[in-house]
Amino acid sequence: MALGAGPEIERLMALLSKLPGLGPRSARRAALALLKRREQLLIPLTVAMQDAADKVVTCGVCGALSTRNPCATCSDPARDTTMICVVEEDSALWAMERVGAFSGRYHVLGGLLSALDGVRPEDLRLDGLVARVREGGIHEIIMALPATVEGQTTAHYIADRLKGLQNQATVTYLARGVPVGGDLDWLDDGTIAHALKTRR
Amino acid sequence: MALGAGPEIERLMALLSKLPGLGPRSARRAALALLKRREQLLIPLTVAMQDAADKVVTCGVCGALSTRNPCATCSDPARDTTMICVVEEDSALWAMERVGAFSGRYHVLGGLLSALDGVRPEDLRLDGLVARVREGGIHEIIMALPATVEGQTTAHYIADRLKGLQNQATVTYLARGVPVGGDLDWLDDGTIAHALKTRR
Repeated sequence: MALGAGPEIERLMALLSKLPGLGPRSARRAALALLKRREQLLIPLTVAMQDAADKVVTCGVCGALSTRNPCATCSDPARDTTMICVVEEDSALWAMERVGAFSGRYHVLGGLLSALDGVRPEDLRLDGLVARVREGGIHEIIMALPATVEGQTTAHYIADRLKGLQNQATVTYLARGVPVGGDLDWLDDGTIAHALKTRR
Repeated sequence: MALGAGPEIERLMALLSKLPGLGPRSARRAALALLKRREQLLIPLTVAMQDAADKVVTCGVCGALSTRNPCATCSDPARDTTMICVVEEDSALWAMERVGAFSGRYHVLGGLLSALDGVRPEDLRLDGLVARVREGGIHEIIMALPATVEGQTTAHYIADRLKGLQNQATVTYLARGVPVGGDLDWLDDGTIAHALKTRR
């Protein structure tokens, strides 16, 4: 792509197009928006990204991205230390925090087991979780993993591995069923069948 | 939104969500992708944005964003100086350059006349265009403006204003009709009627 606008603009577009959800066309639109709103958007975003690159680290306890280590959640004395919620990624942790219904701590795996993608147990943040449970004081481990084959395989693998630790921690799973506000007509057959089987 | 991840991450998400095409959810995904790919994406994109903020200027002749002033197109002696292609924004200029079928120079208006949005002639880069045409040596001015009410109003306003200059410049308009590869069934009635009326 040679636009005559200079290599700096083309490099900006090329890098923006690597963001999830942005293709070449939306990357061009984003680049134009940045260049046209230099003071309001381009410079503040550059500063925010520089800040994030300088300050964001991975929490040594739970693996979450944070500007503190241990992260705010792990070092908050008001949170329940007897519960650990296991999530795939920070995005799931953020979703749980937005809901605000969980007051325990987290463990971010950093992925899911997948034979297809070659993700093995040693590629996930599993040893840290085992160490936290072995240390004791954990009463419940909530598997908040996706309801996919990889998510469920990973959840069962973790439950198996924790079973051998001879501790009192119970492993629980997020309920599955009809989403709140969900219309049966739009749901897949598997969800409907599952919701019917586990009706209460 | 309090995610416990620190204000730096939340600020990054808030600014990313201001980019066109990104909402709150896709901004969170983009922020996570940036933070997880620090060396490959976050740092190179930060550098590219800093570079763009430092070096990109508006060409004093045509109004295009460029790292040079006059821009590469305006200072290229190989380009036809007798033709000016008038576009709304840099994105239209980039689209024309990708096609590579135009060898003249450009003029970027920076918007379109709009009674609804309160955009008046003095808000556009019009005086520069008039000055370029008045200087002489221009044989053709191609109106490559959107086929919308605003685009056509702007094109006719410009044509009227140039008519008074007593020069030999001809004003032309991009042809309208069925897009290449376009199926009649998917086209709006206005386009089909226009294509039929101007058949050849």
